[in-house]
Amino acid sequence: MIQTAFDASRGWDALARLRQQAPLVHCITNYVAMDVAANALLAIGASPAMVHAEEEAADFAAISAALTINIGTLSPPWVRGMELAIGSAAARGTPWVLDPVGAGATPYRTGVAADLARRHPTVIRGNASEILTLAGEVGGTKGVDSTRTPEEAREAASALAASLGCVVSVTGAVDHVTDGTRTLAIHHGDPMMTRVTALGCALTVITGAFLAVEKDPVHAAAYALAFFGLAGEMAASGSIGPGTLRVRLLDALYILDTQTDKQLRIQPVA
Amino acid sequence: MIQTAFDASRGWDALARLRQQAPLVHCITNYVAMDVAANALLAIGASPAMVHAEEEAADFAAISAALTINIGTLSPPWVRGMELAIGSAAARGTPWVLDPVGAGATPYRTGVAADLARRHPTVIRGNASEILTLAGEVGGTKGVDSTRTPEEAREAASALAASLGCVVSVTGAVDHVTDGTRTLAIHHGDPMMTRVTALGCALTVITGAFLAVEKDPVHAAAYALAFFGLAGEMAASGSIGPGTLRVRLLDALYILDTQTDKQLRIQPVA
Amino acid sequence: MIQTAFDASRGWDALARLRQQAPLVHCITNYVAMDVAANALLAIGASPAMVHAEEEAADFAAISAALTINIGTLSPPWVRGMELAIGSAAARGTPWVLDPVGAGATPYRTGVAADLARRHPTVIRGNASEILTLAGEVGGTKGVDSTRTPEEAREAASALAASLGCVVSVTGAVDHVTDGTRTLAIHHGDPMMTRVTALGCALTVITGAFLAVEKDPVHAAAYALAFFGLAGEMAASGSIGPGTLRVRLLDALYILDTQTDKQLRIQPVA
Repeated sequence: MIQTAFDASRGWDALARLRQQAPLVHCITNYVAMDVAANALLAIGASPAMVHAEEEAADFAAISAALTINIGTLSPPWVRGMELAIGSAAARGTPWVLDPVGAGATPYRTGVAADLARRHPTVIRGNASEILTLAGEVGGTKGVDSTRTPEEAREAASALAASLGCVVSVTGAVDHVTDGTRTLAIHHGDPMMTRVTALGCALTVITGAFLAVEKDPVHAAAYALAFFGLAGEMAASGSIGPGTLRVRLLDALYILDTQTDKQLRIQPVA
Repeated sequence: MIQTAFDASRGWDALARLRQQAPLVHCITNYVAMDVAANALLAIGASPAMVHAEEEAADFAAISAALTINIGTLSPPWVRGMELAIGSAAARGTPWVLDPVGAGATPYRTGVAADLARRHPTVIRGNASEILTLAGEVGGTKGVDSTRTPEEAREAASALAASLGCVVSVTGAVDHVTDGTRTLAIHHGDPMMTRVTALGCALTVITGAFLAVEKDPVHAAAYALAFFGLAGEMAASGSIGPGTLRVRLLDALYILDTQTDKQLRIQPVA
Repeated sequence: MIQTAFDASRGWDALARLRQQAPLVHCITNYVAMDVAANALLAIGASPAMVHAEEEAADFAAISAALTINIGTLSPPWVRGMELAIGSAAARGTPWVLDPVGAGATPYRTGVAADLARRHPTVIRGNASEILTLAGEVGGTKGVDSTRTPEEAREAASALAASLGCVVSVTGAVDHVTDGTRTLAIHHGDPMMTRVTALGCALTVITGAFLAVEKDPVHAAAYALAFFGLAGEMAASGSIGPGTLRVRLLDALYILDTQTDKQLRIQPVA
C-alpha cells in the first residue's frame, strides 16, 4: 500500500481556518447530544444549527458548509428530514457525516443506519460495534457478532470504506480513520470521556466542521479526532469526575491554541 | 405492622454490583432531562440509552436490564412508544419505573399518568403533588386538593402502593419508599437541588439502575434515593449556586466510594 | 420624542418580586435550549415548565403567569401547540414572548415567525438579523439583506414595534428595548457569551419571568437584559472558556443580590 506522507502539524492550520471561517454546520442529531454538540462547535469556533423538520431541512442544508446526521433518537419524521437534508447536501457537493448511533441494537435502527450509509456520506463516524454492524449489513462482511477486537474494528472500517467509497472514522482506545486505502491512527483522548454522554456525537459534529475547511476527508476526520481527544486530555487532567470533565472539555476546545505541545499524535498505518 | 430488619449498609453492596454489571437502562424521558439523566447514569456506572420511537421501543426494552418512563414532555407518539416498551418489559419481567411528571397540571397529563400507573410499574417515583394526584385518580383517595403535608403525601403513597400493588417512592424534605406495608424514610439531599432542573428525573433513572441489581424494589428505590441525595450533599457543600452544584453532583456520583462516612440515613417507619 | 423618566434601580425591586412570587413560566422552546433555559429560570427564582403537546398546551398556558414561544427547532406539531398556547394566554391577558430563532434562514421558518409575530406577542426578543427579517416580512421595511449595523437593527426594531403594537427586544453588543416610542439601551454582557449555545433562548424565558412581575413590558424586557447581562459579566470574569462561563452564569443568576454595585446600565435613547 502506498502511503502518502502525512504531516500532522497541518492540523493546526486547519484549526486556524476553522476559527477564521466559522463554518455553518447543519446538525440533525439526537435529543441527548444537542446541547453538548452545539456547545462543542461554538467552543472550537464553528457555527452550529439544529434543524430537522421536513419543511426546511433541505433549504437549511443548502446554506450550510457541512451537514451531520446522527440517528441516536431517530423516528420516522426525523429520518425523512435527514433524507431531505442529505439530498440537498449531495446536490451541492456539501460534505456530510453519518453517525450510526446504536446500529445493531434494534432492527429498525440497523435498517435506517444501513440505508443512510448507502447514500454516500463523506465520512461515517462510529464506535467499533456500530462500524462492525454496518460492515456486515452493507458490505457483507462476516463475523459481526464475533469478539470485537480493535484490530477487527479497523479491518471492518477499511472494508466498509472500500465498499461504500467513503471515509470511516472508528473510535476506541486508539482511533482510526480510513478510506480503504490510507489509514491513520490517532492516539488522543482519556478513558473518563466514556463517562460523559454524547461526546461521540459531539465528535461527529466537530468532524463536520473540519470537513468544511479541509478538502481531504481522511485528514479532516483525523484532525477532528486529534483535537477533540487533545481537548479531552486537557480536560481530564485535574478533573475528579465526569461533571467537571465535560465543562473543562468545552473550555479546552476554546483554548486549544494555548497548548504548548503542538505535536498531534496521528500516525499512518502501513 | 411487622417490619423486617433493614440493614442500610447493604446499599454499598448494591452500588458495587451496579458498577460491576453496568446495567443497560432504557429511558423514555423528557427533552429537558435527557442530558442530565444520561450523565447521572454514566457517572454512577450504568449504561443509559434513550430510545422512544414506536418502531423500536419494544425491541430495545427487550435487551435492557431496566426501563424508566417519564412523561415530562409527553405527546401521543411518545406515549405509544412508552406503552410498547412497557409491554415488552412486562413480558420479560424486566423492572420498570414510572415518573408521572406534572400529574395534576392538565387533564391530558393526569389521564396518561393514571393510565400508565395501572400498567403495573415496579416503582412509581414522584413528588408529593404528583403522588397525591395519582392516589386520587387511581385509588379513589379523597383530598387531592387539600393542603399537602409530608404526612399526607406519605399516607397517599402507602394507599397508592397498596391499591396498585407496586412500590411508591415519594420525594420531599424527607423521602419515603413504601410498598403499602413496609415504609422506609430516607434522610439525604440538599435544598439547593431544587434549583437544578430535572434532578427528580435523574433520580428516576438511577432508581431504574438499582432495580437492575437489587431484587427487593423497596430497597432498590431507597438506595437510589440515599445515594443520589448523598451525592447532592457532597455537591452542595462548597457550591455557590446551582450551576456548580449540578457539575459537582455528577462528579460526586462518580466518586461515591471515596466517601468515608458509609452510614446511609435510611430508617424504617413504624 | 417624550421620554418618561426611567429609574433603573427599580429593576432590583422587580427581581425581588420575581424571587418572592416564583412565577410559573410556560416555555415552548427548542430542544437545544430546554436544559439551560429551565436552569436559568430556576437559578433566578422562577418556576419553569416545558409543555408543548397540542393535547395540553392551552390548558397549561391557562395556569401560567407568562408564556414564552421559541421556534428554534420548530415542526408543524410544535407550531400547533404554540398556537394553542398563545390563544389561551391571549384569552386571559397573560403576557407572552416570541423568540423568532433563525427567521430569515429558510422560507418555512420565516413564514412561521411572521405568522406568530402577528398574533400580538407582548415582547419579541431576537438578534439583529431576526428582527430585520421580521420587520421586512411584517412591516414592509426594505433593506433586510443590507448590511446590518446596530443602528439599522434599532430602527428596524422600532418600526416593527410600531407596526405590531408590541415591544421589541433586540440583542447585540448593546441591547435595545423599544415599543416604537420609548427606547432603552442596555449596556451589559460579555462577548464570550456568544460561544455558549442557547443563551439568547435563556434570555427569552427570563424575559417571560420579568413580564410576570412587572406590568410595563418595556421595563420588564430591559430588566431581563440587564440582569442576564450582569450575570454574564459576573460569570465571564475569571472564566477561561465557555464551559466554565455557562456554569458560573447559572451561579451568578442565583447570587445576583450579592453584587455590591447595584447600578444597572439601562439608558433611555432620545
